[in-house]
This record gives sequence, structure tokens and C-alpha cells, in this order.
Amino acid sequence: MDIATLIGILGGFGLVVATIVMGGNAAGFVDPPSLVVVFGGTFASVFIMFPMSVVIGAFKVGMKAFFAKSRDPKAIIDQIVALAETARKESLVALEKATVDDPFLKKGIILVADGSDDVLVRSVMEIEIDFMKKRHYQGQGVFKGMGTMAPAFGMIGTLIGLVNMLSNLSDPDSIGPAMAVALLTTFYGAVMANVMFLPIAKKLEERSMEEALYMEIMLEGVISIQKGEHPSIVKEKLQAFLSPAMRDDT
Amino acid sequence: MDIATLIGILGGFGLVVATIVMGGNAAGFVDPPSLVVVFGGTFASVFIMFPMSVVIGAFKVGMKAFFAKSRDPKAIIDQIVALAETARKESLVALEKATVDDPFLKKGIILVADGSDDVLVRSVMEIEIDFMKKRHYQGQGVFKGMGTMAPAFGMIGTLIGLVNMLSNLSDPDSIGPAMAVALLTTFYGAVMANVMFLPIAKKLEERSMEEALYMEIMLEGVISIQKGEHPSIVKEKLQAFLSPAMRDDT
Amino acid sequence: MDIATLIGILGGFGLVVATIVMGGNAAGFVDPPSLVVVFGGTFASVFIMFPMSVVIGAFKVGMKAFFAKSRDPKAIIDQIVALAETARKESLVALEKATVDDPFLKKGIILVADGSDDVLVRSVMEIEIDFMKKRHYQGQGVFKGMGTMAPAFGMIGTLIGLVNMLSNLSDPDSIGPAMAVALLTTFYGAVMANVMFLPIAKKLEERSMEEALYMEIMLEGVISIQKGEHPSIVKEKLQAFLSPAMRDDT
Amino acid sequence: MDIATLIGILGGFGLVVATIVMGGNAAGFVDPPSLVVVFGGTFASVFIMFPMSVVIGAFKVGMKAFFAKSRDPKAIIDQIVALAETARKESLVALEKATVDDPFLKKGIILVADGSDDVLVRSVMEIEIDFMKKRHYQGQGVFKGMGTMAPAFGMIGTLIGLVNMLSNLSDPDSIGPAMAVALLTTFYGAVMANVMFLPIAKKLEERSMEEALYMEIMLEGVISIQKGEHPSIVKEKLQAFLSPAMRDDT
Amino acid sequence: MDIATLIGILGGFGLVVATIVMGGNAAGFVDPPSLVVVFGGTFASVFIMFPMSVVIGAFKVGMKAFFAKSRDPKAIIDQIVALAETARKESLVALEKATVDDPFLKKGIILVADGSDDVLVRSVMEIEIDFMKKRHYQGQGVFKGMGTMAPAFGMIGTLIGLVNMLSNLSDPDSIGPAMAVALLTTFYGAVMANVMFLPIAKKLEERSMEEALYMEIMLEGVISIQKGEHPSIVKEKLQAFLSPAMRDDT
Repeated sequence: MDIATLIGILGGFGLVVATIVMGGNAAGFVDPPSLVVVFGGTFASVFIMFPMSVVIGAFKVGMKAFFAKSRDPKAIIDQIVALAETARKESLVALEKATVDDPFLKKGIILVADGSDDVLVRSVMEIEIDFMKKRHYQGQGVFKGMGTMAPAFGMIGTLIGLVNMLSNLSDPDSIGPAMAVALLTTFYGAVMANVMFLPIAKKLEERSMEEALYMEIMLEGVISIQKGEHPSIVKEKLQAFLSPAMRDDT
Repeated sequence: MDIATLIGILGGFGLVVATIVMGGNAAGFVDPPSLVVVFGGTFASVFIMFPMSVVIGAFKVGMKAFFAKSRDPKAIIDQIVALAETARKESLVALEKATVDDPFLKKGIILVADGSDDVLVRSVMEIEIDFMKKRHYQGQGVFKGMGTMAPAFGMIGTLIGLVNMLSNLSDPDSIGPAMAVALLTTFYGAVMANVMFLPIAKKLEERSMEEALYMEIMLEGVISIQKGEHPSIVKEKLQAFLSPAMRDDT
Repeated sequence: MDIATLIGILGGFGLVVATIVMGGNAAGFVDPPSLVVVFGGTFASVFIMFPMSVVIGAFKVGMKAFFAKSRDPKAIIDQIVALAETARKESLVALEKATVDDPFLKKGIILVADGSDDVLVRSVMEIEIDFMKKRHYQGQGVFKGMGTMAPAFGMIGTLIGLVNMLSNLSDPDSIGPAMAVALLTTFYGAVMANVMFLPIAKKLEERSMEEALYMEIMLEGVISIQKGEHPSIVKEKLQAFLSPAMRDDT
Repeated sequence: MDIATLIGILGGFGLVVATIVMGGNAAGFVDPPSLVVVFGGTFASVFIMFPMSVVIGAFKVGMKAFFAKSRDPKAIIDQIVALAETARKESLVALEKATVDDPFLKKGIILVADGSDDVLVRSVMEIEIDFMKKRHYQGQGVFKGMGTMAPAFGMIGTLIGLVNMLSNLSDPDSIGPAMAVALLTTFYGAVMANVMFLPIAKKLEERSMEEALYMEIMLEGVISIQKGEHPSIVKEKLQAFLSPAMRDDT
Repeated sequence: MDIATLIGILGGFGLVVATIVMGGNAAGFVDPPSLVVVFGGTFASVFIMFPMSVVIGAFKVGMKAFFAKSRDPKAIIDQIVALAETARKESLVALEKATVDDPFLKKGIILVADGSDDVLVRSVMEIEIDFMKKRHYQGQGVFKGMGTMAPAFGMIGTLIGLVNMLSNLSDPDSIGPAMAVALLTTFYGAVMANVMFLPIAKKLEERSMEEALYMEIMLEGVISIQKGEHPSIVKEKLQAFLSPAMRDDT
């Protein structure tokens, strides 16, 4: 559970709602047709932008912004160092029986235990990291696309409202309220983009970078194990991926 | 047939039209000269931007956003694994008689069957992937160009309308309607760019990335076959291109 | 002669002029001082941006958007294949007597005929492609710079007009026409940038990419000839640079 | 202590406050609810954008814009040259006893003294430089994110104010002041972004580049020491990292 | 002396001033406090953005936009060819006595004369080119930063003016002039950014590219001399860096 995302979403919407309520005219900010054109238009354009499967997948990906749990890179390094010790004391083949939870690390370890050559191990693992990044990038793309399109449909809605208002200026008292309604779509678009879509896209990008970091640590570790490097060298090497504050000093 | 594109286009235009109709002034949104200047100007600038052949080709490329069918990368991998089995059981030369539908895979397999060395096979196939990307990028460029130019011509149209209106303020009753008409070109430009051109450019980009992925799978597969790798290794390797959920676990 | 550029420029300006004339106030759109500040300011800033020689060279480069003729890459490939045949049947030295029009291909062929080693041939030809791209990029830069600066000077002109108008509101009848004139510089800037400078910069970019493609085909071809590859292999290799529709199937 | 940052912040805010005071209406620029929605909304969105640990870490990173002290690259080079002399006169093992303050340089020297091979030394040090850059980039990202979001929440606040004002135009005397208040959030957002967040993000980027430069000098120096290069060659090589004016001429 | 920069600056400011004077209200465009907030704010933010030494250095770098003199790449090539002849006829050691004005070329020639191996020569010279580019990039960054910040402070000034004006609408006659003054900061920001800072940043970029080109020619030349290549080959190779029109045909 990523509490920061929840705090941010609740805080952002909370502040906007509080500001509206303090203005004493909350009802004036609710206009279902305006909401439909901005939200619906944003969705429609995402369907044009991405293949169906990507759009559907994006909602699953989007959940990561709320529910992904950060992992401790030190624990990953410790596990790899332990595997390096097993490989040294026993043999590479002995790694086959080791319990490894992470499927990516497991795949690498099994390739090594099977005696695959190091070019194959590296190429299989690198392709997997690359394509993980590409899949995540597509998922972020859906949210970035919504973050671009929401203000655009907000503007389209406001233009429709303005044209309507300007075509019919006969009743001066209606000008202000008509323009207020026209501005609502711009307001909805700005809130959707800046309180939801764009920051979520950024969080997904951060999460993807984090995952790529873990996978790169695993890749370097697996290669080191295959080369038969000493566990203390493996640790030294992998700790370079951590910030100085997180390192064990031995 | 890419149903998502159709849903998106119909949904996007549908919402805009519905919003206009609900405003009770639908006729006020139809102004053929405004439509001509925005659409025509957008087209004219695309002719300046790209060589004639690219502009004409772009419409064919654009059709892909509507009619390209997604392929199943697993089927491609299965076919390559089957070819790897043939090559192992029989010989590389036997591949010549295999039926391969995809012209790119076919070309690679024939090069291998002919006994070309692996540097040549890789270089011919990589050049082809690169230039496929460049050609597609040009096609997307036409739609991106239209997506940039439509709002620009929308603004030019609105400026013409504003200058006309401001030069002649003698009749106050005509100010509102004149400004409404002036805003129409901005409205047309925003709708064209955001409901059509920009999202279609993005879909073409996604389709191109998908095609490049298939071609990279084929390239890696062909190289593996040439190296005489075991079909199970070939499968292992190529599955790294898939998302974990799509993989066969054996 | 690039007819598309001509069609685009005439079409774009034609539509703008037609829209103005239809407004019945064409004289109101002609204001020489406004034209001078936008056009002159744009030019002045280009002189600050680029060295004198680049600015002067850019006009020659800009002509390419109008007069460059597309070449047929198939003809280039055919010529290279013919040269490969000569080299095979006779000798590399025999290439010296071959008639080659293109100066870049000629240079490569002469280097090969002179018996230069392949690292030298590749490095001389690659440096030439790179610097051709850099020179063209600079030329495009002048047009992109004008495309950025024209709207900026348009806005500066409009701000001057607005400040003048607002300082002197005593005669209400003059407000409208004064604002109309103030908007003219914004209008001129938008038209210059979007109907001329930016699309021309894009066409120059496309032409440069095309030329780089031809040069890359020539480079690969020359290297293949030097290696003594069979003409049919040379053809196979070079056709990868073409779109599938343009290839000869043999 | 980075005095330039302090001068800039005080100067920027000072000028804005002075301009407000000179307008004679300073009280009109203080509106706590507006301040809360812009500042709070900006913070909320940063929580959505980044994992909790990064947001918290960013304030520590941000302090660097104020308190980081520039180092003298010449002193670093002198120290490395001295280490190279020790290595030449005594031995690589003798480096173990050298006093080295910088932890990154220390790590490299110890790896060399331990007799690690040069591929390991380079890879450990390069990974550390890369990940230092990535961590810093994330820290800058928080400030860039706030610099983007502050104007967005400024605009959202202004839209709320405008809708409120337009819905209730019955009292003409309140229109001006209501709009003045509505504009305050835009003003707050612009000041926060341009006087604080964006320039601080840039300073952090500059500091990170500086640190990377020092680390690259150390990396090249350590590798040279390991190769046993002559101290004068080491100096020659490392001085290429300095501007000509900073070099010793010997 | 770069005359183009002078022409551009004088031309740009001249046109703006002429347009103002023609408006008959030149005094209305002079408002020292507005000038102070835009110019001062822009400077203040640059101090936050960059370390003190870079800000101070930038003014020296900025002078290059006015005073850098273009060099003739042909003369550089001729000198290198002459050095290649000396090296061939006499020996590499004889190069030590050659008179070379350019300090970068001199450094390379001395390294070669000293018998350094080619990896060292190339690495020392490449590091120097890279860091020259980075230093220049930082200098350009200061001008780009001012070009971004000037319009931002222009907008901040205008917002302050608008809030002041809107808070006090009691005297209708003062509205126009108050808004005129409010717009002045936007006007100052736009002029500073577009007539000075942004075009100067671009010129510095062009000058840096030019210098990098000369240094790359020198690097390739020095390496060729070290390899003992024939002067005519050296010339052939280095002329690839020139545009076809500038080459000697021999």
C-alpha cells in the first residue's frame, strides 16, 4: 500500500473541495453534462491512442500507484550474497534447490544452475528488463495521455459554452452565470489532469525505475555468482547500487 | 479492425456533438468558411512540411489506426520454435521448404537456409527494422504535423474574426455573434487536433512499436536457429519479450 | 522542383487571404509598420542567433524546400549493383574508370579503387554523412528560429499597441480600431510562423533525412563492393533500406 | 554555504515584496486560504508523484542548494597525483595506508590496493556514479514537480474564484475585488514556481553535475594509478577535465 | 568581432523603439520600477540557479556572442597537413619544434612528439573536447535561464499590477492607464527574452559547435599524424569535415 498516493489524492481533492465550499456556492460547481464531456472525451481519446489491451491493462497498472509496496534493496542484496555463498561452498548446481521468491531472480539462478553460458544469461535477463520497462512505459503513457487530453476537452467544452453565450447576449443577467458554467469544463479538466492523471503517471514512472533498479541488482548479482566471485566482492559490487547511507560497512 | 479507434472517434465526436445540441444552438456551430480555412490550412501546411509521396502515403498509413489487427506474439514464438525443431532434426537447408507467412521472418529464414553468415543476417534484418521504424515515424509525423497546425490555423482564423469585429464596433448587437463566429475556428482546430490527429498519431506510434517488437522477436529467433540452439532455449529466450502473464511455464 | 511546397504555400496564403477578403475589410489587414516590426524583428533576432555565414547560407538551403528533386533510391541501388558486378568481373581498380555522377558515391568508389583499407573508407564516408547532417541541421535551425521569433515579435507589437490604447481611453470610438491594429502584429507573426517558417523547416528536415538515407545506402554499398560481396547479396542488403513495396523480387 | 542561492532567494522575494508595497495595497496580497490551496495542493501532488521516502529525502537534498560548498577540483587532482607518486615509489599495497577523506576516492583506492582487477574497479565506480546521478535526479524531480504543480494549482484556484464571481454579478462593486482575490492564487503559484522551486531544481542539477565531474576525475585517476602510469601523465590526463584557465602549466 | 550579433541587437531594439516612438507615447513605456522588478528578478533567479562562479563566468562567455571571430577550418587543415609532412619527412620527434598557435592542437602534437600511445592521446583530447562542451553548455544555460525567467517575472509584475487595479476600481478614468502600466512588465520581459537572452544563448551554442568542430578536426588530424598516414590521405580525411563548396579538389 502506497500511503503517499492516498494522502496526496485525498489532500489534493480535499483542498479543492474546501476552497469551493468556503466560496459559499458549492452547487455552482456541479454540472453533470460538463463532467461527462470532459471525462468521456478524455477516455474516448485514450481509446484512439492505445490498443484496447493496453487501455484495459493500464487500469491494472494504475493500481500500482496505490498498492505497490516498496521493497528493501538491502534484503535483495543479502539474498544474492547468500546464494553466492551456497554456490561457492557447494556448487552452481546446488543453486537449483535454493528457495527464491522473486520470479526474475529465480529465472536467472535456474539459468546459471543449468550451466547456461554467461552471454545467454545476460541477454535473457536484459531483454526481460528492457521489455518490463517498455510495458510500464506504455502504462504510464495512458495516464500521461489522459493528463494531456483532460485540459484539451476542458477547453473544447469552454469554447462551446462561450460560443453559445456570445450568440445570445440579449439577456445581460444570464451572461455571468453562462460564462461560469462555460468555465467549469476548463476547471474539471485542470483538476483531473493535475490532481490525478499527471501525478499518477509520474508515480508509475518512479515505481518502474525502482523495479528496474532491483532487476539490475539481480542481473549483476547473478552474473557475479556465475563467475564464481567471492561473496564479499559480490556484496561490495552490489552495494554500489545503494545510497551511501544504506550501505553496510564491513 | 481496431475497434478501440472506432469507439474513440465515435465517442469523442459524439460527446462534442451532444454537448453542442444540448446547448440548443447547434446551427451556430456550423460555419463552412471557418471549416474550410482550418481544414484547408492544415492540409496546405502538411504539403509544405512533407514530400508529396509521404503525404499521400500517410493516408494509407493512417488506415492502420483503424484496420491494423493485433497479432499474437505467442503464435510467432511458437512458429519460430517449430522452425528451430525442424532445423535441429533435419538441417538448416530444410528450412527453405517451411511455409512462413510473415515476409520478414521468411526473408530471415531464407538467408539462414542459404548459409549466409550471421553478421549478414543480423545486419540485413536490423536495417529492415530500422527503416520500417523510420518510414512509420514519417507517417506519424504527418498526423502530428496536422495536430500542431490545426490549432494554429484555428487561432489565425479567430484573429481575422477579431480584427474584423473590432474594426467595426458601431453596431453593439453584432459584437457577440461576431465574436462567437470568430471563436469557431479555434473550436474546430481544437476538436480536429484532439479528437482526431493527435490521438491517431499516438495509435500509429503504438502500432509501430508493436510491429518492431514482433520483428525483434523474429530477429532473435532467426539468429538462435542459425546458431543451432536447442528449441527449449529458443523458447526461453523469446519468452523474455512477453509479459510474465503471457508466458508458458514448462 | 518540389510541387508540394508550392501548393502548400499558395494554398495556405490563399486561404488566409480569401478569409480576409470575405470579411469585407481587407484594407484593415494591411499595416506596413506592423509588418516591418514583425518581419524585421524576426530577421534581427536570427542575426543574433547565428553566425553571418549561416544566415546567408540558410536562404540557399531554404531554396531546397522549393527546388530539391526527389531521387529514386532504386536507381542508386541499381548503379551500385552494376558497380559490384564490374568489381567482380574485372577488378576493384577497374572501378576508377566507371562513370558515377553522385560526388559522394564517386568519392567512395575512388577510395576503394585506390586500395584504401575499409576502416578508412568507412570513417571518411561516415564523417561526411555526419557533417552533412550538421550543416543541414543548422540551416533548418534558421527557419525554426524564425518560426519561434515571429510570434514573439507579434506579441511584442501587440503589447505596444495595447499599452498605447490603454494609456489613452478618452475617445471610446477609437478603442476598437486601435485594438484591431494592435492585434495585427500577432496575426502577422502567426501567419509567418505557421504558413512559412515552421513548415519549411520541417520540409528541410525531411529532405535532409532523405539525403542521409541515400548516402547510407551508398556507404553500405561501397563497403560491400570492397569486401567483394556477390552482386545479388549487395542487392539483397541494400533493398532492406527500401519499403517492401519498392523492392524488386527476384 | 552557497551564498548565491541566498542572495537570489532574498533578492527575488525582496523585489516582489517591494513592488507590492510600492503599490500601496500590501494587505490585498495576503489571503491565507489562497496560500493554503496553492501550497497545499502542490505538496499533495508531490506525494502522489513520488514514493514517501523520496519526498522526505528531497528536503534534505534541497538543503544542498543552500549549504553545499564547492570543492576545488585542482586539490582533488593534486591528491590523486600524490597517490600516484606513492604507488610508484612504494607499491599499490602502500596505498592502503594513505589518508583519503573523500569516501568515493577512498573506496577506489582500497579496491586498487586490494589488487582487484581493473574491470571490477571501473564497474564498481561507474555503477556508483550512475546511481548517485539517478538519486540526485529524483531529488531534483521533486522540485521540478513542485515548479510545475504550483502554477497549475494557482490556475485551479483562480478558476474557482472566477466561477464564484461570475455566478453572482448582482453587486457590480464587488466584481473588481473578487477578481483581484481570484488572481492571487495565480500570483502565488507563479512566485513559488519561479522564485523558489524551478531555480532550486536547476541549482541541484548544477551541483549534481559538479559532483559527477569530481567523481569522474577520481575514477580516471584511480584507473591511471592502477595501470602504474607516471604521475606527470596522470596530471596531464586529469587536467583535461579543468578549464584551461585553471590548469598548472609545467 | 561578430558583426551579425551587433546588427541583430541594434536592429531588434531599434525596431521596438521606432514602433514605440511612432505610437506617440514614448514616455508611457518608461517605468523604472517595472524595469527593476523584471531585470532584478531575472538576475536573482539566475543566482539561485547557478553557482556564483558560473554566473560570473557567464558574462565573460556572453562576450563571445559579440567578439568571437570565426576561424577558417581550411587554414587549420592546411596546418595539420603541413605537420603531417614534417612528421613524414623528418620524424614525430621533429614536431616538438613546430610552431603551433592553437593550444589544443599544440597539446596533441606534443603528446605525439613525446611518443605517448594513441589511446592516451585520443582519451586526453576527447576529455578536453567533452569538458569544453560542458563548460560552454553551462554558460549558455545562464542565458537560457534568463530567457525563461524574464517573461516569468514580467507576468508576476503584471499580476501585481492587475490585483492593485482590480482592488480599487472606484475611479474609472484610472483603469486604462493602470492596466497599461501593469502590462509594461510583460512587455519588458518579452523584449529582454526575445531580443537579448534567447538569441544570445543560441549564438553561444552555435559558437560552441563551431569550436567543437575545429577540435574534432584537430583530434582526427593528430591521430592520423601519429599513425604516420600520408599527408594526402590526411587531407582527404579532414576535408570530409568541410562542406563540399569549401574543399580543395586536387
